[in-house]
Formats: sequence, C-alpha cells, structure tokens
Amino acid sequence: MSTFDARPIGVFDSGIGGLTVLRELLKAFPHENFIYLGDTARLPYGSKSAPTVRKYSEQNMNFLLSKNVKAIVVACNTASTQISESVFEGIPVYNVIDPGAQLAAETTQNKNVAVLATRATVKANNYEVKIKKLNPSINVFSVACPLFVPLAEEGWHDDAITDQVAEKYLSELKNKNIDTVVLACTHYPLLKKPISKVFHSAVKLIDSGHAISLILEKDFKQGSILAAEKNNQQKQLTVYLTDSGAHFENLSTQLLTNYTQSKIVFETVSVI
Amino acid sequence: MSTFDARPIGVFDSGIGGLTVLRELLKAFPHENFIYLGDTARLPYGSKSAPTVRKYSEQNMNFLLSKNVKAIVVACNTASTQISESVFEGIPVYNVIDPGAQLAAETTQNKNVAVLATRATVKANNYEVKIKKLNPSINVFSVACPLFVPLAEEGWHDDAITDQVAEKYLSELKNKNIDTVVLACTHYPLLKKPISKVFHSAVKLIDSGHAISLILEKDFKQGSILAAEKNNQQKQLTVYLTDSGAHFENLSTQLLTNYTQSKIVFETVSVI
Repeated sequence: MSTFDARPIGVFDSGIGGLTVLRELLKAFPHENFIYLGDTARLPYGSKSAPTVRKYSEQNMNFLLSKNVKAIVVACNTASTQISESVFEGIPVYNVIDPGAQLAAETTQNKNVAVLATRATVKANNYEVKIKKLNPSINVFSVACPLFVPLAEEGWHDDAITDQVAEKYLSELKNKNIDTVVLACTHYPLLKKPISKVFHSAVKLIDSGHAISLILEKDFKQGSILAAEKNNQQKQLTVYLTDSGAHFENLSTQLLTNYTQSKIVFETVSVI
Repeated sequence: MSTFDARPIGVFDSGIGGLTVLRELLKAFPHENFIYLGDTARLPYGSKSAPTVRKYSEQNMNFLLSKNVKAIVVACNTASTQISESVFEGIPVYNVIDPGAQLAAETTQNKNVAVLATRATVKANNYEVKIKKLNPSINVFSVACPLFVPLAEEGWHDDAITDQVAEKYLSELKNKNIDTVVLACTHYPLLKKPISKVFHSAVKLIDSGHAISLILEKDFKQGSILAAEKNNQQKQLTVYLTDSGAHFENLSTQLLTNYTQSKIVFETVSVI
C-alpha cells in the first residue's frame, strides 16, 4: 500500500469567497492537487435557511466525491454551520468553524473575541458554542455584516464606503476591548484593511484558510490523511462553477494569481 | 360564459423586490386576487447567467400555473430579460421591461433616459433596444448598480452610506442632462430617495410596478384578460417563498402593510 495519495483535495463554497481558503491551502501544501467547486448558480448561502444550506452542501459534496477526492474542505462558514460531521461517505470532511474557533481560543490574550459573519452564521451560533467549549471564560461578541459579501464581490476592498459600512457594523464592538477578530465568512479576508481600521489597535484577525491549514498540516503529520508525493507538480487547477459567466471567472483568476503555477481551467457543471 | 374571472394573478420575483410591483397592482386593482412567489432559495438572479435565469423563471411559472392563475406577472427585471413571450402554456405573461420601456419613451421630454439595473439586466440590454425601437432619437444611458439590492434588503433605504453608493454609481450620469430614470430592478423603488438626491433636479423616476399597472388596465378594458367582479373581496394574500426564514417574512409583511386588507399567509414551497 502506497504511503502517498495523489487524489485531489476538494474545496467548495457558495461562490468565490472560498478562494481565500484555497489560496492558503495552495500556499501551505504546494505539492497537493486541488479541485474547487463554487456554487455560483445558488449563491449566496448566508441569507438562506438551514435545511436549504444543508441540502445544497450535500449536493456539492456528492459532486466532489464523483471527482474522486481524498478529502473535502467546506470553505464556507454558512455551509460549515450545517456540516458538523467529520466524515462523509467515507471521506474526511473539514469545516472551517472548528479550526477558526480553536485558533481564536489559542490566540486571545484578554479573552475578548469578536466573530464577524453572515446573518445565517451568526444565527447558528456555532462559533460561540465551540469557543466557549474550549475555554468557558472567553467572551464572544458576534456581529452580522450582510453587506460585506456584496462589497467584496464588487471589488471595493479598499474604499471609503466600505470603511463606513465597517464602522457602522462594528462600532458596537469598540468598547469591548477586543484583541481577536474571527473573519467568520470566507469573503471577509478580502476586507481585512477596512475591518482593521475600525479597531485601530493591533487586533489579531483569524482567517479561516490559515486556521484550516494548521489542522490539515497536523493530520498529514499524524497520517490520518496521506499527502501527495513531494515531487508532485500540479499541472492544472480545475475550478468548477455551477453557473457560467465571465464575472466570476475573472474574479477567480485575479484571486488565484500569485498562489499557483498551474493552469486554471474553468468548467460549468450541474450538481443537482 | 362568465364575463368575470376570479382566478388570481400570479406574480413572481427572485425575492422581495417584486413586492414593490405587487404593491402597485394591489393599489390599482383592489378587487383582484393575487398570489406571490419569491424564489428566495435561489436569489439573487442579477448575478446569474441567462440560461440559469431562464430555467428558474420557467420553474416559477410552472408553479404559478399549478395554482390556476389567469395571468403571470414577471416582477423581476432580470427574469424579464429572459421571458420575452407574451403567452406561456396558454396563459398571458407580462414582463416588466416592455411597460417600463414604453412609459420611459412617453415620459422623456429631452430624450435623455437613464436605465439603472443589475449587471445581468444591463448586459442583456433589452431596455435600450426597446426604447430605441419606440423612438430612435432617445439616448439611453445604462448603469449597473450591484449594491442597490443588498442595500435595499438591509433596509438602508434612507442612509448616508446609500447616498454615497448612489453618488458613486450615478455620478457619470450627471452631465448627461437626464430627465427620466428607469428603476429597472424591482428593488430600486425602495431607494427612490437616495437616487433622486443624486440628480437634484426633478427627474421622473419610472417604477416597474406603476408601468405594468397601466398596461394591465388597458388589457382589462380591452377584454384580453377578464377582471374579477367589482364586489370581490380578497380574503387572503398568499406569499409563497422557496426558502423559509423569518427575515423575508418580516420584510414582506412590512412592505405590504398599508397596501392590502387581506390576511397575509406565508407558505414555503419547492418549485423544482
């Protein structure tokens, strides 16, 4: 039996937000093969109900399984609120909430953590429950920021309007002495600059992609999943989108440039 | 054969934007029965591809047909770009683009018309084509305003941030001597105030719901569709949503209050 496994790791999100996770994974594991699925025909998930998000996520995971993946990364916080299992049809599944909660609990010094997320993720409340399970003395302040996703998708990552939206959503956190902020939506790393500005001082921003890389690294070391060979060179990175359209392809190319040497190939697919 | 027809008029949209159309219809035709379908499980349509929007719209229309409607109103501009037929399975269909284009062409005095819409509607370019067909001497300036929908859904209808977003999107129109602005997305009537502010002077805003009411009124008079009896009292207004969730139910109730005496009943349905 081989001690290597060249099968790809499958990553999915409702749209392009999960590319911030894929970028971190590409950086951390340059020898691995990845495939990405963006469910752009049904995005966004953040305003949809729990059963609908669960159904869409299962369809996405079944699609990735049909592509013979060795692991699945749920690169969407809203989807992660509904996928708590660590195995799906025999394949290991990584959601972004457990790693983010763990890294936040390890990072905070003064025990005041903010969680910024979509309305659905805030409502599901998983971060607070998980962080408090790790350390009950941590105070968790969750704030829904529904306009952050459309602002990120509009490309207004460093704009006076985005600064004001951030100020409006986050001003209630200013007197909470926050030292750690969980970017609990995979779009939000694109807005690191305006979010940091609100807090002035040096808060630590927890990025889901970085958090999940740390967990995967541990699992590779422990052998619970097998890595690709060190000399493996990914030739092609396939991005599957459930809807066609130049807008998302352009944004994806822009977000992945500098993170991969591979040719990026786009394919429109149905997951239903 | 009766000269009246008590069957409901079916109205659909990707979400809650179409309620601005339903409101105008309720005002104009208080004796008619209406049912509304909001495809909240798959909203928004504005960033999706033409074939996907067409497929979703057909599924919505088939659902409305199963509820025995006498006419279908496509209360979504993006969907209207893909539904050009005036009859679907034997039932008359009204899209919002034809009435809006016609009213804009009749309204402008100086022949400078702006069309504000989603990216998909701007790309489809139907308004410009239709307005110019009615009067080739009219100049049409189309501008995509992708953040208007999330701002409307966030409820920031009269807010300094929305003012600045409107200013940013629309400043290029300021030196065009516009006298007529088509609100070519059914969410946009909720942002009439910030949009008006940009133009200072008294531009005329064309609201899809008002425009379609004028066309329907003509068709009722001509007898191409039969009205409900004058003493008909709608007892119940059913709002079907493809996704459950208190957020949209609350927003819907808020938007329809003052426009109907009927009890508003919500039902979650599948249209696939």
